Amino acid sequence: MSVAVKPSSRQLVASASVRYLDRLARRIEVVGNHLCLGIDPDPATLPSGFSRDVRGVEAFARLLIEAAGPYAAAIKPNIAFFEAFGSEGIAALERVRAAVPADVPFIADAKRGDISTTAARQAAALYDSLGADAVTANPYLGREAILPLLERSDRFVYVLCRTSNPGAGEFQNLAVEGGDPLYVHVARSVSSWAERGDPVGLVVGATAPAELAHIRAAAPALAFLVPGIGAQGGDLDAVLRDGPAIAPPVAETRGGGLVINVSRGIASAANNEGDPGAQIASAAEGWAQRLQC
Amino acid sequence: MSVAVKPSSRQLVASASVRYLDRLARRIEVVGNHLCLGIDPDPATLPSGFSRDVRGVEAFARLLIEAAGPYAAAIKPNIAFFEAFGSEGIAALERVRAAVPADVPFIADAKRGDISTTAARQAAALYDSLGADAVTANPYLGREAILPLLERSDRFVYVLCRTSNPGAGEFQNLAVEGGDPLYVHVARSVSSWAERGDPVGLVVGATAPAELAHIRAAAPALAFLVPGIGAQGGDLDAVLRDGPAIAPPVAETRGGGLVINVSRGIASAANNEGDPGAQIASAAEGWAQRLQC
Repeated sequence: MSVAVKPSSRQLVASASVRYLDRLARRIEVVGNHLCLGIDPDPATLPSGFSRDVRGVEAFARLLIEAAGPYAAAIKPNIAFFEAFGSEGIAALERVRAAVPADVPFIADAKRGDISTTAARQAAALYDSLGADAVTANPYLGREAILPLLERSDRFVYVLCRTSNPGAGEFQNLAVEGGDPLYVHVARSVSSWAERGDPVGLVVGATAPAELAHIRAAAPALAFLVPGIGAQGGDLDAVLRDGPAIAPPVAETRGGGLVINVSRGIASAANNEGDPGAQIASAAEGWAQRLQC
Repeated sequence: MSVAVKPSSRQLVASASVRYLDRLARRIEVVGNHLCLGIDPDPATLPSGFSRDVRGVEAFARLLIEAAGPYAAAIKPNIAFFEAFGSEGIAALERVRAAVPADVPFIADAKRGDISTTAARQAAALYDSLGADAVTANPYLGREAILPLLERSDRFVYVLCRTSNPGAGEFQNLAVEGGDPLYVHVARSVSSWAERGDPVGLVVGATAPAELAHIRAAAPALAFLVPGIGAQGGDLDAVLRDGPAIAPPVAETRGGGLVINVSRGIASAANNEGDPGAQIASAAEGWAQRLQC
């Protein structure tokens, strides 16, 4: 199924006719690793030399993209760090997005999902206005509430399954009908959506390695976006073992559709002695080595 | 517990020292009804005379506030309708927010929730930058992921429980440990948070009246925000019967903390013959009658 994409001056997606997972696989071929560069610039933790306001946030985000972007298979800003500054923050995010090369998949971490007419406007915001290649979405309202995000065959939706925060299990680990935890039920449901043609994968935190293995068994063919490595202390070996897809067609692509997000683990290098850009590049190179495939 | 609120030029909250539910109860006293005016301006359905772009969306939102606001107990924009236009849309939303009188509670329908540092930036975006009195949040990541939204004792969080979309039951109706559906488990959890002092209520759709009664029984003291009346075809009698809180302290306030959202049911009146503002005011007056308390 192919849905026409309205051309937009801000449309930076590499090629609307190529599926996201193919674009991602191509980029993974180029860089040879699973690294997703997280862009989460909090004014409270900006390195010295950056003003603790929207200008500092934008400048630091641009430095991250310039210095670490060449090592990354994908780039993922969490848009809350820009929304915090209102319209000026979104204007900064738009400029940051324009600084991302067209061949690097751009994932808007927004965790959306809403009733139908609203979800359609979320798709307009993230895909058309911001030019995101992929987004994150929350499953609580059901597939119907993210349908407008799924209906664009050249884009991609990572559905939250097991998140990386310490309190993630409060509802996600509840046993549901059949005895599985809710997150496994979500994984199976999303797998069935993918089998019917939805361009969809999962967000699975690295901080719960046993859950990760369980989810991989339940969803062998889905592409995973894995946060929680680095500052959050996730289990890298477990992610590299269970993260890549093990069933076709995604399993047949370089990297098995796996991207592993690193945010603070790279950004915090700017606090080291020396040129911040060089320190960031060095940290990104180190992560690219650890995440090679 | 009182948390200092940073003064801001955009800070329009009536009084930072007064709890949200008290401000809402005071406004319900003034208007004598449960009406929450939903502001969801979709360019595709704007009445004639409004341009189908961000300017038309802003002008129509302002007309709704001017003409229907005087009848409303609260005003709730879904911010996706502004996000769809990027930074220009958020700038429009900021002007729309500034047009809401300080004594009318302003609910930002954003359905947020994210890992800790990100959720703190969501609080900055919605409470400080936009000046929201209350927000909506998604429970999937657990209480910990909305804690920064809950920590402001003068604001309020409506947690999604049973939503009004046709596909809401896909995950929300799953039976969990103990046999209750997930949405009832969420209602009980949120009740326990409120008992510990969190300023929190529930979003409960009017399109599922049996579920609404079930949730009220599980959460007798919580304030409800109820969407789904009007265009979505919800059951108004059931909402007026089971919507107000039945346990103190919220049950003791005029209206029992209940607000019932009407969006298209008022906005669509602008398509009638005659002056759009007068038509909107007339529709709002009609809803105010039906939702009186």
